[in-house]
Amino acid sequence: MRIAVDAMGGDFAPEQIVAGAVLAADEVDAQVSLVGRPEAIRACIGERPVNGRLEIEAAQDIIEMGESPRAALRGRDDSSIARAVGLVKDERAQAVVSAGNSGAFMAVAATRLGVVPGVKRPAIALTLPHPSGYRVLLDAGANADCKPEHLRDFGLMGSVYAQYTLGFDSPRVGLLSIGEETSKGNELTKAAHELLEAADLNFIGNVEGGDVFRECCDVIVCDGFVGNVVLKTLEGLTAMLTAQVREAILSNPALQSAMPAFEGELRRIANQFDAAEYGGALLLGVNGVAIVGHGCSDARAVRNAIGFAQRAVHARLVEHLSEVFAQRAEKSA
Amino acid sequence: MRIAVDAMGGDFAPEQIVAGAVLAADEVDAQVSLVGRPEAIRACIGERPVNGRLEIEAAQDIIEMGESPRAALRGRDDSSIARAVGLVKDERAQAVVSAGNSGAFMAVAATRLGVVPGVKRPAIALTLPHPSGYRVLLDAGANADCKPEHLRDFGLMGSVYAQYTLGFDSPRVGLLSIGEETSKGNELTKAAHELLEAADLNFIGNVEGGDVFRECCDVIVCDGFVGNVVLKTLEGLTAMLTAQVREAILSNPALQSAMPAFEGELRRIANQFDAAEYGGALLLGVNGVAIVGHGCSDARAVRNAIGFAQRAVHARLVEHLSEVFAQRAEKSA
Repeated sequence: MRIAVDAMGGDFAPEQIVAGAVLAADEVDAQVSLVGRPEAIRACIGERPVNGRLEIEAAQDIIEMGESPRAALRGRDDSSIARAVGLVKDERAQAVVSAGNSGAFMAVAATRLGVVPGVKRPAIALTLPHPSGYRVLLDAGANADCKPEHLRDFGLMGSVYAQYTLGFDSPRVGLLSIGEETSKGNELTKAAHELLEAADLNFIGNVEGGDVFRECCDVIVCDGFVGNVVLKTLEGLTAMLTAQVREAILSNPALQSAMPAFEGELRRIANQFDAAEYGGALLLGVNGVAIVGHGCSDARAVRNAIGFAQRAVHARLVEHLSEVFAQRAEKSA
Repeated sequence: MRIAVDAMGGDFAPEQIVAGAVLAADEVDAQVSLVGRPEAIRACIGERPVNGRLEIEAAQDIIEMGESPRAALRGRDDSSIARAVGLVKDERAQAVVSAGNSGAFMAVAATRLGVVPGVKRPAIALTLPHPSGYRVLLDAGANADCKPEHLRDFGLMGSVYAQYTLGFDSPRVGLLSIGEETSKGNELTKAAHELLEAADLNFIGNVEGGDVFRECCDVIVCDGFVGNVVLKTLEGLTAMLTAQVREAILSNPALQSAMPAFEGELRRIANQFDAAEYGGALLLGVNGVAIVGHGCSDARAVRNAIGFAQRAVHARLVEHLSEVFAQRAEKSA
C-alpha cells in the first residue's frame, strides 16, 4: 500500500508535513510518497533517519491556502495537490492526505478521482469521540446546501464508514434536528427523515445537538452548513470552558498547587475534539481514500492522518461503499 | 407595571412558578399576576408571606406540555396561557412569562398580541454570556425555515434589543456562517448577507460557530434551526466537559481534597449558559414583552424571568422596536 502526502499544503508545510511523514514511515505499515518540491522536502528531511518506505514525488506548483478551489482545477497539473491526487488516480497510491487548501483539495479529488457510482455528493465525515468510543458526523462542511436525498446518502455512507472503519455492527444512524418527534425539524430534515426511514439503514430518527455528546447513536447526519457550525461551536466552547477551569484553579490559592497534577488531564479534555487525534476528516464518497487534514496540522497530526488513511484502505472502505450503492441501484431498478 | 405569569405551565408548575412569583413580588419593582386555578395557586402560596404586589387571576384550563400549538389556538380561551397573554392584550399587564408549552405560548402570543408592524416573523432571542458580558443570539428556535429578509429583520430586532436592554451603544451584528469571507455560506446566508449589509445596522459580516464564545460581536443572527442546534450543542457539551473535569479531579488522589474548594467554581462554569441565570428567552417581535421560560424552570428561574420582563418593559423595548421598523417602512416607501 502506498499513501500520497501533499508535502506543500498546510500552515506548517513543508516542515511539519515532512516530519509527520518520517514518523509514519517508521510506524505505519505503508509506503509514503511525499509530493512537492524535492529540494524543499530534502531540506526538511535533513539529517532525519529515513527508511525505505519514504519516497519523494516531484511537483513544482503550490496551491496557496487563499486561492479559490476553482483556480486549482485549471492548468495546475503540476501542483502538489494535483500530483498527489494523481497518484491515486493512476493507481500508484491507494490514499491521499492533504492539510493544504481544503476547498481545492476536495474539488481536485472529486473531479479527478470521480465519485463512487450512485453517490451524488461526497461529504466530509468527522470522527468525534464520546465518553465510550467514537462516532461519525457528516457532512462537516463539503455541502453548504443539501437536498433530502443527499442527507439520505450521507446516512448510507456514514453507516458503511462506521461499520468497516470504526467496527460498529449495525451502526445507529440519527438525523440532526430540533426535536425528537418525526414532525420536528425544517423542510429539509422533514423530507430527509422519510427517505432515511425508507433506506436500508438502522435509522433511529431525529437526534438533537446535545446528542452529539451522548451514547445514543453512531452516525449523525446533517447538511454541511449545520455540521460546520456544530464543529466550530464545539471547538470554540471546549477552548473557552477549559480556559475557565484553568483560570479558576490558578486563581484559587487552595488549588494552585494541584495544577501540575491536573495539567495532563485538562489537556486531554481540551484536545479530545482535535481532529488531529484521530487523523483528520475523510472525504467520503470519492473513488479513493482522501483525508482532509486541518490547515494547522503538526507532525503528529500528519502521522495520525497517514495512519488513518492506512486503516481506511486496509478496511476496503471504498470497495464497501461501492457495493452498498450498487446494491441500492439494483433494488431501485 | 404588571407582569402576568402562567402559573400552570412548566414541569414543576404550579409549585415552583408560584414560589418564583412570591420571590419576585418581594424583589422586582412590579405587580405580579399569577394566572391559573386559584385554589391550586393558593395551596402553593400556603403560609408564605405575600405582599400586596402579588395577585391571582383565574383560568381553569391548562394546555399540557405535549399538546400541539395549534390545539392551543381554538376554544382554549380559559387556559392559563390564553388568560395570561390576554392580560397584555387588554393592557392590564405589560409583559407575560410562561414556562409551559413553548410552541403553544408562542402561537398564542403572536396571534393574540400581533406582531410589531413591519416584522414578518417573531424570533426567540437568547441572552448568552461570554467572558466579558452578554450577547444575543437569534433566532433560537421559533422559525425552522427562514427567508433572507427574516434574517435581516432578526438583525434589526437583535440590535434594538442589545441597545436598549443590554446597553450596547452601537451593537455589532454578525451573521452566523461557515467562513468569514462574504462568499462563504449557504444560499440563505449569502442572500441575507447582502440584505444585512444594506440595512441600517452596525453589520460586521459573517461570524463562525466559535465566535459565539469570543468577544467579537454583540448580536448573532441565524435561522431557528441552526440557532436551536447551537443551543442544544452548547448545553450538551458544557454538561459533558464539566462532568469530565469533576471526574478527573475526583479520580486523582492528589486532587480529591481540593474538590470542595472547587465545587462552587465548577458549578458556576457548568451553569453559565443556563437560560434561567438571565431569565429566559424573549419572543422578540410580538406586540408585548413575552418571556419563554425553560420547561424545567425552578423558583429562581421564574423569579429571574419576571425580573427580565420588568427590565424589558422598563427599557421600552417594544416601543423602540416599533420605532425602528416604522422608520424602515418610511425609508423604503
